[in-house]
Amino acid sequence: MSIDVVDIQLLFEILGTGFFAISGALRATRHARPEWFGVTFIGFITAIGGGSLRDMLLGSYPLAWVADPRFLYAILLGIVAARVFYPLLMKLPRTLFLFDTLGIALFTVLGTEKAIGLGIEPAVAAMMGMFSAVMGGVIRDVLTHREPVIFGREIYATACILGAVVYVLLEQLGSSRAVNFCLAGAVIVMIRVAAVRYKLALPTFPSST
Amino acid sequence: MSIDVVDIQLLFEILGTGFFAISGALRATRHARPEWFGVTFIGFITAIGGGSLRDMLLGSYPLAWVADPRFLYAILLGIVAARVFYPLLMKLPRTLFLFDTLGIALFTVLGTEKAIGLGIEPAVAAMMGMFSAVMGGVIRDVLTHREPVIFGREIYATACILGAVVYVLLEQLGSSRAVNFCLAGAVIVMIRVAAVRYKLALPTFPSST
Amino acid sequence: MSIDVVDIQLLFEILGTGFFAISGALRATRHARPEWFGVTFIGFITAIGGGSLRDMLLGSYPLAWVADPRFLYAILLGIVAARVFYPLLMKLPRTLFLFDTLGIALFTVLGTEKAIGLGIEPAVAAMMGMFSAVMGGVIRDVLTHREPVIFGREIYATACILGAVVYVLLEQLGSSRAVNFCLAGAVIVMIRVAAVRYKLALPTFPSST
Repeated sequence: MSIDVVDIQLLFEILGTGFFAISGALRATRHARPEWFGVTFIGFITAIGGGSLRDMLLGSYPLAWVADPRFLYAILLGIVAARVFYPLLMKLPRTLFLFDTLGIALFTVLGTEKAIGLGIEPAVAAMMGMFSAVMGGVIRDVLTHREPVIFGREIYATACILGAVVYVLLEQLGSSRAVNFCLAGAVIVMIRVAAVRYKLALPTFPSST
Repeated sequence: MSIDVVDIQLLFEILGTGFFAISGALRATRHARPEWFGVTFIGFITAIGGGSLRDMLLGSYPLAWVADPRFLYAILLGIVAARVFYPLLMKLPRTLFLFDTLGIALFTVLGTEKAIGLGIEPAVAAMMGMFSAVMGGVIRDVLTHREPVIFGREIYATACILGAVVYVLLEQLGSSRAVNFCLAGAVIVMIRVAAVRYKLALPTFPSST
Repeated sequence: MSIDVVDIQLLFEILGTGFFAISGALRATRHARPEWFGVTFIGFITAIGGGSLRDMLLGSYPLAWVADPRFLYAILLGIVAARVFYPLLMKLPRTLFLFDTLGIALFTVLGTEKAIGLGIEPAVAAMMGMFSAVMGGVIRDVLTHREPVIFGREIYATACILGAVVYVLLEQLGSSRAVNFCLAGAVIVMIRVAAVRYKLALPTFPSST
């Protein structure tokens, strides 16, 4: 039973990693003359960046992708898929949005769960969950000279932190792990969908420019 | 007695972290349309970036802010304070300069001290002190597409490294911890103040542009 | 005998570090008004960035340059040499190319070897070797607002990953360490030289711009 949970968690994490690689590779094609190595590298960094940073901050070694080459294979598969289905994916912005949203929901919940499992305080664990989800994309944006995704007014990382807070609250209430996982993930997906459909945006801070 | 020293050190570190959050949040408001999440994120990264990098390089786990949620609360408080006192802070550039200078002086000395306590060689410990003070700002500048603060001709990180060198020299001479702390910190503050008042700048390297 | 191998490996690593510092410092001089501190900082980051990232990802502590100040001295020496021989080095682009190529070949092989020694799977070990060689330059490029070197169409990081793959394949075949070291290094140097001489470039991915 316990083994099944671990297996499902690992499966989710590998799936999420592969998807982030697709999303990273597609972003890299916005570059003027993308070549295979650069696209692969960006896909790779996007996929492993958030989880690696979380684990390095937590001192939780070995990193999942360092210990288990299946993460690497999932990433390479994702990048080849991005190439093969490129014309199709470019025509389906909503599909991409869906995958990306599922990806950040999954990584937020897995990251929060991992930090709680290591005995980290709830407020910090929620930060770690959000980091897992968004930092791969932030590193990708820095490397490709784009405005980091977290600074868009669109509700993105905020959805992750809210989902992570829901997770830690449910956890404190003693709710079961599977319920926390599904509810927190659903919160993230619903906020993202609502934000895009109703064009919700975050309140602004005064600007000094 | 020993507990008091640890308490004071922790108090200084939490205070410095809160201040760096204020400084980071105010920098983020130079962005075209700053929204709350982005400003908070930048404040957070500025506050914990330097110390986290130092501790990850040293392999010194757990990181202070991961183990102790008071750092997170100090950061959130700093960001709220930045918002509440925004009009006032914008009118007081010297106050900001003062806080920033106290912040880098504090972090340089605490970082150098920590590295020495871990048995690191003095030259490397001085680097770690400087890293603690400036790397949060460097990461902030990279994320917000600004010229990293360390490349200005103004004497900034150089003041930190000189202060750190003073600390390790005093330490080698067997001077007491409190004396080293105050003298090294004072050196950093004085160099910064002198650099700004007398418009001191670093000598340049040949430029190939 | 075993001590000799370790000594030679350490010597290579310190030499490579010093050279990367020269290369980083010279890149920094393309900045509009380079000043000494900034140039030194960039030289330092270029020299220790790749190896530090590899070791932090592997959880392999202490980092070489943190434990052994000779790395720091090699870096400072490299930066002084970059200044003293500046006019000469600017006239010798081929010499620079040669040193850079030797540097990445050396770091790729040393990094792959280190990861294998820690029991990392071959595919991941090859990635770590490539990271050791190129990430210092990537961090340098991000800090100085340049297009990261890995996104040029020129074959650069690709040469490293191919050399690392050669290393792990030879290792699997049971070939001796010295042979693996020399052959894999030679592959990297030859690919780089051939790429530049025959203007080889990587195939491109579709571009969405």
